[in-house]
Amino acid sequence: MDRFEYRSGNLFVEDVPMADLAARFGTPLYVYSADTLLTHYRKLATAFAPLNPLICYAVKACSNIHLCKLLAKAGSGFDVVSGGELYRALQAGADPAKVVFAGVGKTSPEIREALAAGIGGFNAESISELTQIASLAREMGKTARVALRVNPDVDAKTHAYTTTGKKENKFGVDIADAPAVFEKFRGVGGLSLHAIHLHIGSPVNDVTSYTRSIERGLQLIDALRSAGHAIDTIDIGGGFGAYYKGDEAPPTADYAAAIVPLLKDRKLNVVIEPGRSLVANAGVLLTRVIHLKPGPSKQFVIVDASMNELIRPALYGAYHFIWPVAAGQRVPGSRGPEQPFDGLQKCDVVGPVCESSDFLAKDRMLPSVQQGDLIAVYSAGAYAMAMASQYNSRPRAAEVLVEGASARLIRRRETYADLIAAELEPLPG
Amino acid sequence: MDRFEYRSGNLFVEDVPMADLAARFGTPLYVYSADTLLTHYRKLATAFAPLNPLICYAVKACSNIHLCKLLAKAGSGFDVVSGGELYRALQAGADPAKVVFAGVGKTSPEIREALAAGIGGFNAESISELTQIASLAREMGKTARVALRVNPDVDAKTHAYTTTGKKENKFGVDIADAPAVFEKFRGVGGLSLHAIHLHIGSPVNDVTSYTRSIERGLQLIDALRSAGHAIDTIDIGGGFGAYYKGDEAPPTADYAAAIVPLLKDRKLNVVIEPGRSLVANAGVLLTRVIHLKPGPSKQFVIVDASMNELIRPALYGAYHFIWPVAAGQRVPGSRGPEQPFDGLQKCDVVGPVCESSDFLAKDRMLPSVQQGDLIAVYSAGAYAMAMASQYNSRPRAAEVLVEGASARLIRRRETYADLIAAELEPLPG
Repeated sequence: MDRFEYRSGNLFVEDVPMADLAARFGTPLYVYSADTLLTHYRKLATAFAPLNPLICYAVKACSNIHLCKLLAKAGSGFDVVSGGELYRALQAGADPAKVVFAGVGKTSPEIREALAAGIGGFNAESISELTQIASLAREMGKTARVALRVNPDVDAKTHAYTTTGKKENKFGVDIADAPAVFEKFRGVGGLSLHAIHLHIGSPVNDVTSYTRSIERGLQLIDALRSAGHAIDTIDIGGGFGAYYKGDEAPPTADYAAAIVPLLKDRKLNVVIEPGRSLVANAGVLLTRVIHLKPGPSKQFVIVDASMNELIRPALYGAYHFIWPVAAGQRVPGSRGPEQPFDGLQKCDVVGPVCESSDFLAKDRMLPSVQQGDLIAVYSAGAYAMAMASQYNSRPRAAEVLVEGASARLIRRRETYADLIAAELEPLPG
Repeated sequence: MDRFEYRSGNLFVEDVPMADLAARFGTPLYVYSADTLLTHYRKLATAFAPLNPLICYAVKACSNIHLCKLLAKAGSGFDVVSGGELYRALQAGADPAKVVFAGVGKTSPEIREALAAGIGGFNAESISELTQIASLAREMGKTARVALRVNPDVDAKTHAYTTTGKKENKFGVDIADAPAVFEKFRGVGGLSLHAIHLHIGSPVNDVTSYTRSIERGLQLIDALRSAGHAIDTIDIGGGFGAYYKGDEAPPTADYAAAIVPLLKDRKLNVVIEPGRSLVANAGVLLTRVIHLKPGPSKQFVIVDASMNELIRPALYGAYHFIWPVAAGQRVPGSRGPEQPFDGLQKCDVVGPVCESSDFLAKDRMLPSVQQGDLIAVYSAGAYAMAMASQYNSRPRAAEVLVEGASARLIRRRETYADLIAAELEPLPG
């Protein structure tokens, strides 16, 4: 699952005690395990190897360029959704030909940047965007390789905010309308409309949501090929689950076992866009108890991490396993909310931000902790730092990457001066 | 209400056409009206003048130091909730004696910074924190002036995420327990526990929530005085409403009319902490239509602002009035969701971010707009830029301050390089 493990009652990341990292780099701190990230990548690559896919890491899950560098070296491409993510991928040494660019609202400057970089292709979401891409490509004397994102109307059975493949979502073109869109852009200059793209949400723990989505995509490809469109690629998106409670996500091999047979004899290039499944369990948010405060029905454990560092509980009602770094005899065997120990106490784990949405866990049974104790918030590799804010003028936390017994800072902690740098003179305009 | 007004069908901020600002500074763009902010401040100061209160602007609502400077010049103090906000207030020229420091999770370095600056006082939230402040003050040879935040168990009738005065919230000390807390810290060195602090949430449009809360606070003060505690100050917090739909918040004068009589003969210094009510309507988020996309039951208007710039719709289900900058004959007379014009179309106004939570409005009836049109998202002065993120690696938007016919940048737009600056070598540690 990952390399965050207890040794003699103390939490380690790979071969480094978490407590050492807190002492060296301070808290709150995002801690990543390189081995976990790369192991997840290799498992996915192996499971899908029969398809010889282009794996494009979804940069939005966790965007630090040092993690992107690790993945680029391992052979990964990149799924980007903005000019900023494209910039990050290129800075990390990505092969531009292995970059795909998705998103419903690409601006013209972003499209030009992507064309200039020579990216592998765009995932386009609307007729308006196809027109825009074609026009900009012609202006630049280029031909854009484009997949049409189609909306298969499949319920990914995940949070309403992270489901993306239903008719009422803003993403893609209704699958029933796709043939007419391909017809409309047949032979249009600047455009090679050669692929379809599917992405139904994240996390999607239900394998059949994928197979239904892909089956619908393949029917569409058959129809498009019959109509004379040279479709050579299917991008099946990402959204594979991660381990928050411990076993709710199928292993990568199960996704592959269901998906590979559907695609392996179809003479299609396959693109896969995993994000969360690679990086969620590769990160832990390390935080320190500032205060304990008894409430009428539970204990408030006030820590120095907050909705600034992890907004998922507030925004999605997300569950993250939380446990003391020094667990003593109470080393958890799983990451579910129910732990088989005596003497646990009902707690709200909350941050310093001044609103009631600032919580990391509610009504959680935890061992007794003391002021100054370190606490680990698990599965915080994905959609944690990537969504961080400076709300309440709190400088964003540092990120540390651990490889074996060594740890290095991959993003320094922000300072007060950083908060206002963009507000100081001389300001342009 | 504010200085965002249509002239001949085009939206102006004070004497500047919004379209000119988009052309000069780009979009998305936060636009603030200095006159609106200062008018709101003066109205509040006038309404509460019989109490001669210390007005402390709640920096968390909108933290830009140039707005803080305007308020400091107008005589305002500052309510800060972190070391970062204290830094901002001091950079803006705040009188330290007019700064109060709230929050459930102040760290020891933050408390030391505040003591060193000589702030007016702390609003302390727990026994653990009182112990910490006293200890640090003694170490520094100082006496900290402290208000105990008490939780009056009053329902502010606002969103669960922004109500803060109920028993189950993390804030303050149960009002019933307050006398024991004062007793516990009687005569403790380093501490002058001279005040109580109330803050029940935001926005609070129900005046009686305030009067009930203050009445409970006054009963407590009577009891404390009877027990020999020298209580000289009551901080009644903030949370006064703003105009999102147009008339849901009582005028400042109504709050004052209910509150002033309760306090004016009580021989108490009064502190008020307004944030939203001063700045929400002083800001508009200006955005441009990137794409239009027909959906099965409504139009998707894809704009270049997103949950990065304004997370309130996704996080709180908040309503923001939205209307085209060039309104032609359709100049809205109110800011409610129902507008009395023919030919409106049901729209979701969404941003480019790759998840379904990225919306600014759902099922909103809007005039027809075209690609490239400018749209104004109203009441975006408070909890907009303050909560901004770079999710999807999108550089944060610029902020512009308008005073009469002049406009100036008060925060420059971030660049791609800004996104990764903290990740680049040489990194310390």
